[in-house]
Amino acid sequence: MLLARCTHEGREFLGLVEGEEVQEISGDPLRVPFAQLTADPAALAAGLPRHPLAAVELLPPVVPGTFYAAGFNYKAHNRHHEELGYDPVKVGDRPEVGYRAQSALVGHGADIVKPQGVEGRFETEAEVVAVFGATLRHATREQAIDSVFGWTIGNDVSAREWQHADRTFYRAKNADTFKPMGPWIQTDVDPLASTTTVSRNGRLDAQFATGDMIFDPYDFIVEMTKYITIHPGDVLWMGADGNTPMAVGDVIDIEISGIGTLTNTVVGEAADTHTERTRS
Amino acid sequence: MLLARCTHEGREFLGLVEGEEVQEISGDPLRVPFAQLTADPAALAAGLPRHPLAAVELLPPVVPGTFYAAGFNYKAHNRHHEELGYDPVKVGDRPEVGYRAQSALVGHGADIVKPQGVEGRFETEAEVVAVFGATLRHATREQAIDSVFGWTIGNDVSAREWQHADRTFYRAKNADTFKPMGPWIQTDVDPLASTTTVSRNGRLDAQFATGDMIFDPYDFIVEMTKYITIHPGDVLWMGADGNTPMAVGDVIDIEISGIGTLTNTVVGEAADTHTERTRS
Repeated sequence: MLLARCTHEGREFLGLVEGEEVQEISGDPLRVPFAQLTADPAALAAGLPRHPLAAVELLPPVVPGTFYAAGFNYKAHNRHHEELGYDPVKVGDRPEVGYRAQSALVGHGADIVKPQGVEGRFETEAEVVAVFGATLRHATREQAIDSVFGWTIGNDVSAREWQHADRTFYRAKNADTFKPMGPWIQTDVDPLASTTTVSRNGRLDAQFATGDMIFDPYDFIVEMTKYITIHPGDVLWMGADGNTPMAVGDVIDIEISGIGTLTNTVVGEAADTHTERTRS
Repeated sequence: MLLARCTHEGREFLGLVEGEEVQEISGDPLRVPFAQLTADPAALAAGLPRHPLAAVELLPPVVPGTFYAAGFNYKAHNRHHEELGYDPVKVGDRPEVGYRAQSALVGHGADIVKPQGVEGRFETEAEVVAVFGATLRHATREQAIDSVFGWTIGNDVSAREWQHADRTFYRAKNADTFKPMGPWIQTDVDPLASTTTVSRNGRLDAQFATGDMIFDPYDFIVEMTKYITIHPGDVLWMGADGNTPMAVGDVIDIEISGIGTLTNTVVGEAADTHTERTRS
């Protein structure tokens, strides 16, 4: 099943992507009916219209209550960070989860706006994303596996100079549009057997085994839920293996086999936005 | 106006606290109708029941879309951190916002559960919280002031050994129940003229001028919105001046004059929860 959140003619709804069409389903588009979707998706679709996929805009498929993100979770990415002077013992020794901001989420097809003032490395991190469908605390590994409703794709856009200059990631990783997620949630895939492919303007830039993680999603869920209750709709971004540089005008495709392709275009922020407004 | 989110006989609703009663208002309790509340709260209350305040349970008054938190925002708190060896130039030189987890929120009257495995300093940080009622980007200071719908109280519960041992705050500050918030949103107060008073088991532990911040809420909003769009329902916790130690059995009251008092009791996590569940 491919679950998408869509807008069409100003109306927002959830839908099941079936070939080149979207079958609308009932309910509040901000509250995915995970249990009903697992039990009887046809009942949710009864009497509702189908739309051409090309006619709808795809939003982030879920708005997470809590937005979790793993960091330093691929060996090659960590070696690079150690070369930049990070303390190696703090990197990847335990599955410690971090957070990202809901305000930064945009969907498939949306623009990534490179803010005024971003200098130096401005990069894609291509990540597989677990979407939780259950409430869970003190999970066993088996419960952790069962708690994942499906999978989507995230681009953990990062402005490196801000990342190094700031105490927090508020603008380096959480500026508006810095968290593209989509195009949909795929429930029928084992992403640990997938391949992640990043293309820049149609040319291959990076490719890695999605499952080549230091700690897999279930390791994280077991560790997190020692302290934290996860809830349906929460998301866990799993980290990236390497970076792809981005310039204004670039089209970035992140494909994870078995899930789909998340595509976004980099645009520049209007030149006067900052200077005018912040001078006042 | 005092806006609360309540449960009563298994039903959740928003209400206006008026003396010792709560006047129920209409609408989805997870989507505060900020504009209507500002324009005509009586219309939202028409025909709906009143409840004794003592008969309802108070939930966190809002579930934020994005949960912002200022750190290192009072001079005394920062001196203490510098004594502990933090780099002083990284502390409080700019209004850099961080994030907390929605999963950790509980309301007034709820228990703070001290997890198994927390050793050493386990502390209250008493914070005033801005609740946004507007969508805003590139705010002027005047727009920032207008964007705040009202104010509530937060307890940024912190387990210091985890804070120092971990790369992220996932368990040090975001374990379940570590973010009490409430009791309600007060719209008619200037908290920069308030006094924050922390009591432990009814005895005064700390008192400070709520407005004695390095950067005030509007400084933060102007800086944040250079990069980030704030949305109605988002919250910004403003940091604390000092800490109050907490032990199992303690009752912690945080009073901010003109807003109210947030009360929570510290309980211990059941001894077998961890060992049993994580062994399997």
